[in-house]
Amino acid sequence: MNGKLITFEGGEGAGKTTQARELTKWLQESVGLKVITTREPGGTPTGEVIRQLLQHDLSGEPLCDETEALLFCASRAQLCKNLIGPALKDGTWVVLDRFTDSTLAYQGYGRGFNVDQLRNINDFATGEVKPDLTILIEISVEEGFSRISKRGDGVKDRIEQAPLEFHTRLHDGYLEIAKREPERFVIVDGSQSSEKVQEDIRNIIRSRFGLEV
Amino acid sequence: MNGKLITFEGGEGAGKTTQARELTKWLQESVGLKVITTREPGGTPTGEVIRQLLQHDLSGEPLCDETEALLFCASRAQLCKNLIGPALKDGTWVVLDRFTDSTLAYQGYGRGFNVDQLRNINDFATGEVKPDLTILIEISVEEGFSRISKRGDGVKDRIEQAPLEFHTRLHDGYLEIAKREPERFVIVDGSQSSEKVQEDIRNIIRSRFGLEV
Repeated sequence: MNGKLITFEGGEGAGKTTQARELTKWLQESVGLKVITTREPGGTPTGEVIRQLLQHDLSGEPLCDETEALLFCASRAQLCKNLIGPALKDGTWVVLDRFTDSTLAYQGYGRGFNVDQLRNINDFATGEVKPDLTILIEISVEEGFSRISKRGDGVKDRIEQAPLEFHTRLHDGYLEIAKREPERFVIVDGSQSSEKVQEDIRNIIRSRFGLEV
Repeated sequence: MNGKLITFEGGEGAGKTTQARELTKWLQESVGLKVITTREPGGTPTGEVIRQLLQHDLSGEPLCDETEALLFCASRAQLCKNLIGPALKDGTWVVLDRFTDSTLAYQGYGRGFNVDQLRNINDFATGEVKPDLTILIEISVEEGFSRISKRGDGVKDRIEQAPLEFHTRLHDGYLEIAKREPERFVIVDGSQSSEKVQEDIRNIIRSRFGLEV
């Protein structure tokens, strides 16, 4: 049997990284599945070079927004073809902290690129690899902002420093994206405690994939 | 006044590189224009890193076809935004040995990707930068093959080693692409001597852009 691809999406501070890690652990340890995670951009030798390029370490030149979006998708293509696709075929489950919808939300709704054009580029990059379930963790823009500002390291990246309007467009964009594919998306209330969010997610997975754990 | 963007296209062995060089020289020396050329992938610090990635030097991993196409377009986006666009606005002419149509011909007609999908990715990458004139140098597949095999270095790259059917699809694909945009494309008979092809191209440029040289 094929594995399942589960992706996490949401704005800054929603708790995606924590929840993706907790879900992976639970699927492995309690459900007994073979599960892998990976990162974007990155996850393959080519993707890791692209990651360095995106972080401006390699070329010493600022990337234009179009280049940035295309590099994300190039990394994604390599990841789908060489890692995710073969894993799913092999019965392995894959859990991702962000995937195609992040491109639509950040580059489309956030930066103002045409969303359908980005959707088409995503389709080209991913081929037959499509998420079986996407968990959108929703918190208000204000709550996300407040969480980011409390983060330990005190260093904010480019996205975290973006103005409130950007994060509002992102938040609303995610809801639009989810509305378009209600069978793929589940929206989880990220304002709850991390434990309650975890429990919600486990229940969704149980019912969606018929797991008896 | 804005500069003009002139691109050369055609299959292997058609003589694009020679003709692009000769045209650039003529436009500079006889017409007295400011002209730049560049290369794809490459032409910017980011593009040159992508070029190395495409030549498998950086990641040590074979690229899947989708990744290859997206990296070409990422390099193109950076080139259009940072080099070609500003040059044209500045009144500089730009002559390119291959551009967007090569992606349609090689990845689309050659490798079998959806041509409209590639066209959309090209549009995303190039934005407002569109060729004012594209010169398709046409030679028969057999003639192209024969020229490649006579090349000095004896080393054939991956494309040059591709089977005859690939080159036939490429040849016919280029004619399809040209037919779709008759106002942008001019087809030149590449079976003639290099000098005759040069003269044809100069005449086309004279009449297209009203040059009195």
